[in-house]
Amino acid sequence: MQAWSLAELGRRLDVRVVGDPEVTVSRIMPLDEAGPGDLSFLHNPRYREQAEKTEAAAVLVGDAEILPGRNLLVCDEPYLVLARALKLMMPGPTLKAGVDPSASIDEDVVLGDGAGIGAQAVVGAGTRIGPGTIIGPGSVIGSGVTIGGDCLFHPRVVVETNCRIGDRCVFQSGVVIGSDGFGYATVDGVHHKVPQVGIVVVEDDVELGANVCIDRATLGETRIGRGVKVDNLVQIAHNVVVGEGSILVSQSGISGSTKLGRYVVMGGQAGAAGHLSLGDGAQITAKTAVMKDVPPGAIVSGVPARPRAEWTRSQAGVARLGKMRRQLKELERRLEELESDDD
Amino acid sequence: MQAWSLAELGRRLDVRVVGDPEVTVSRIMPLDEAGPGDLSFLHNPRYREQAEKTEAAAVLVGDAEILPGRNLLVCDEPYLVLARALKLMMPGPTLKAGVDPSASIDEDVVLGDGAGIGAQAVVGAGTRIGPGTIIGPGSVIGSGVTIGGDCLFHPRVVVETNCRIGDRCVFQSGVVIGSDGFGYATVDGVHHKVPQVGIVVVEDDVELGANVCIDRATLGETRIGRGVKVDNLVQIAHNVVVGEGSILVSQSGISGSTKLGRYVVMGGQAGAAGHLSLGDGAQITAKTAVMKDVPPGAIVSGVPARPRAEWTRSQAGVARLGKMRRQLKELERRLEELESDDD
Amino acid sequence: MQAWSLAELGRRLDVRVVGDPEVTVSRIMPLDEAGPGDLSFLHNPRYREQAEKTEAAAVLVGDAEILPGRNLLVCDEPYLVLARALKLMMPGPTLKAGVDPSASIDEDVVLGDGAGIGAQAVVGAGTRIGPGTIIGPGSVIGSGVTIGGDCLFHPRVVVETNCRIGDRCVFQSGVVIGSDGFGYATVDGVHHKVPQVGIVVVEDDVELGANVCIDRATLGETRIGRGVKVDNLVQIAHNVVVGEGSILVSQSGISGSTKLGRYVVMGGQAGAAGHLSLGDGAQITAKTAVMKDVPPGAIVSGVPARPRAEWTRSQAGVARLGKMRRQLKELERRLEELESDDD
Repeated sequence: MQAWSLAELGRRLDVRVVGDPEVTVSRIMPLDEAGPGDLSFLHNPRYREQAEKTEAAAVLVGDAEILPGRNLLVCDEPYLVLARALKLMMPGPTLKAGVDPSASIDEDVVLGDGAGIGAQAVVGAGTRIGPGTIIGPGSVIGSGVTIGGDCLFHPRVVVETNCRIGDRCVFQSGVVIGSDGFGYATVDGVHHKVPQVGIVVVEDDVELGANVCIDRATLGETRIGRGVKVDNLVQIAHNVVVGEGSILVSQSGISGSTKLGRYVVMGGQAGAAGHLSLGDGAQITAKTAVMKDVPPGAIVSGVPARPRAEWTRSQAGVARLGKMRRQLKELERRLEELESDDD
Repeated sequence: MQAWSLAELGRRLDVRVVGDPEVTVSRIMPLDEAGPGDLSFLHNPRYREQAEKTEAAAVLVGDAEILPGRNLLVCDEPYLVLARALKLMMPGPTLKAGVDPSASIDEDVVLGDGAGIGAQAVVGAGTRIGPGTIIGPGSVIGSGVTIGGDCLFHPRVVVETNCRIGDRCVFQSGVVIGSDGFGYATVDGVHHKVPQVGIVVVEDDVELGANVCIDRATLGETRIGRGVKVDNLVQIAHNVVVGEGSILVSQSGISGSTKLGRYVVMGGQAGAAGHLSLGDGAQITAKTAVMKDVPPGAIVSGVPARPRAEWTRSQAGVARLGKMRRQLKELERRLEELESDDD
Repeated sequence: MQAWSLAELGRRLDVRVVGDPEVTVSRIMPLDEAGPGDLSFLHNPRYREQAEKTEAAAVLVGDAEILPGRNLLVCDEPYLVLARALKLMMPGPTLKAGVDPSASIDEDVVLGDGAGIGAQAVVGAGTRIGPGTIIGPGSVIGSGVTIGGDCLFHPRVVVETNCRIGDRCVFQSGVVIGSDGFGYATVDGVHHKVPQVGIVVVEDDVELGANVCIDRATLGETRIGRGVKVDNLVQIAHNVVVGEGSILVSQSGISGSTKLGRYVVMGGQAGAAGHLSLGDGAQITAKTAVMKDVPPGAIVSGVPARPRAEWTRSQAGVARLGKMRRQLKELERRLEELESDDD
């Protein structure tokens, strides 16, 4: 591995060097695993004690005062600079362009320059894949699909017929895009399937976690906005719209036709019922169940969801229930005493 | 695309035409995306305002009074007729019969007439696949499996050894049928695996969503009844029985050996503990945790689940806790006053 | 199928025979499905009535008194002996060693004796697979991966670059190991991806359920300890450590950097926030949301998690809220009476 002096990293990453600029590092490691040849980083104050004890040669940090006497790289946005340092010092493997001989590619597939199709992958008729996009081994891309440039699909991704994917999207393994929406017309005890003829549109710079499911629309589109980040095992139903920059944490789920504004956050294992509107910047805390519209900027919690402050108060009230019961009994006793005096 | 006059659609779908029978439509689109050449539909009253403003040439609706002055197709079951109209006007692609040359099929596999095996799929020894059934690309069907006729498996479905699937089943991508049940005998801190030698039986007309997991029985069968519909990312453990016509909404889960009656509904992210019985027609609302048996027809909510009405009352009580605390304080103050008067 | 006399089973399984030792059985079946040629077993007292009525020729049981007059195999640990009886009487299929001709194996892959690679599987450069390990059809094993001996990967498992798997691990279908952790540096409304350059280490004797996701570490390792058992659809985020012997029930999730001690149990659909510590032997009941550290041995419930006993009391309090309200009203009425008397 290449060794980098702190001076060189300071120049390349545009950060301030504190301590010895000649010290060299070749890897980035967590505080508690780093050794003398490593750079580490402190972002979450919870790990300050670990940072004081780390054997790392240098630490990337937001505030030099926190770690006196250390070799440091200091900057305003240490987590962002970490991202850049990782790309610089520990780049991923170069992915192979071209079509693996074991892949099954329909004749009229259009592949951009530098695009790559992994082993055992399948690509259907009429599909267009942009330049620099890598389709992982074992993936199945249906017919009539459009995928932009510079995307990275990990192994075993599915994108079904006619869906459209933007540029620079990253899909982890097991992602399913364009499965049928869950729609049935129930008459006399029979659930008749309503054909799901719409598509899924994923805009640019979207990342989807492992085993995420996004259903195609019944009619029209299910749409994932630009820059949305979705964690593992999230469910997005038919005709949902997720606004730009929203964050959906692991195992959350959004029911059919619900619309999320821009920069909405769904916490882990949270859910939203169907046909709702969640305003721009709304925050749905972990485990919450949204059962009605949420105004822009609101923070909601609980089952069903209520404003966060209200929920916190009522939780505190529940914790005090035992005390309230004892107070009630005591009042009753005193009242009885007065009543008997009164006779 | 073919254009259809309302008159023709009225005849074909057996519905009443209101307005101009000569108007033609070629697609079905949502109210807010439909244009002058489109048919749209109004099913959920929540979208009435959208229906009034839609640019669609005609609307499929349950009640002509709701949309005066519009070209309409009117019928008692608009959602069911929508399903039929979609099949008529926007049929899916014809799926290819025959075995793709890249598939790996064991020699003694039996394929019915018109069955199709997709690219890169794997089918094991002794497996029988019924007429008209399509196995999607990248699917893995184990040995000794029986699959009925006219099923549609989307890409990358797994059905493991000896499981049995009925007719007309639709499985979305990433479905896993026949994974081992979660059974261990823990002795002296070691979890010894209990071999799971049972199977999964899926009856006719079942639909399973993307990345659904159904574990094989320890002994005997895990059974999914006729006409059951299962949404994405649902978990069904070993030896569970799901009765005919039940609906399991996304991310719900059923623990081992629990039996669901007919037409049970599990809401999104709901769960049921093991070895329970959920009676016919029971409704488990979203996010609920069922910890004991549920009688037929009951509607239950909460963690742990209680009758819906009781849960609603207690939730209202929790919301009033702040007020109750103030009342208690006020009573205490008045009581003190009386007590001091009493001296 | 081979028939076994109870006498023979008694010797082979080292258990006591009660009743007729000459009786033979050839399968093991559940109590309610067993017939005259079958052995069944009673482990959960809930099924005692079924055991009394079973048509099984013999029953494996922990206490002979429970089923008087029956042919029995009696032992202290009937569930553990069931595991051994199943291996003896109903062994799984012998899995094929060698590389299936349809698999895509990089040239420098190292395969141990008796290892097998299934149809359509993909194995990347520099990967080492131990003796007796079976990689299921359609699996994708990245480059630089190390897998121990005697593992069984069911179909369509993904293990990404550089991850390390121990001996005797069993992974169900759809498992994804080594997907990117969910880490972004958000600056001016843009979520910049933090490269996830760490790995996942899975120690010996770990079992992972269908569609389980384990993210690779940002830096360093995500680690799953020896003997951990993970049920279907569980989410394990980057840099999580799960201690030896822990049990994660279906659809539970653990957020980034949280550390579980040894023998922790996460119930179904439970979740833990990030950067927490759950002590040895902690039990997180189903549906619980852990929001702060849990001491060793604690049993916690609720959203947010509290000690189980406290949660149970407060749930009882909530159920009594209606009664408390009536008591408050009654106290108020009596107080008013006293006050008017007082005038």
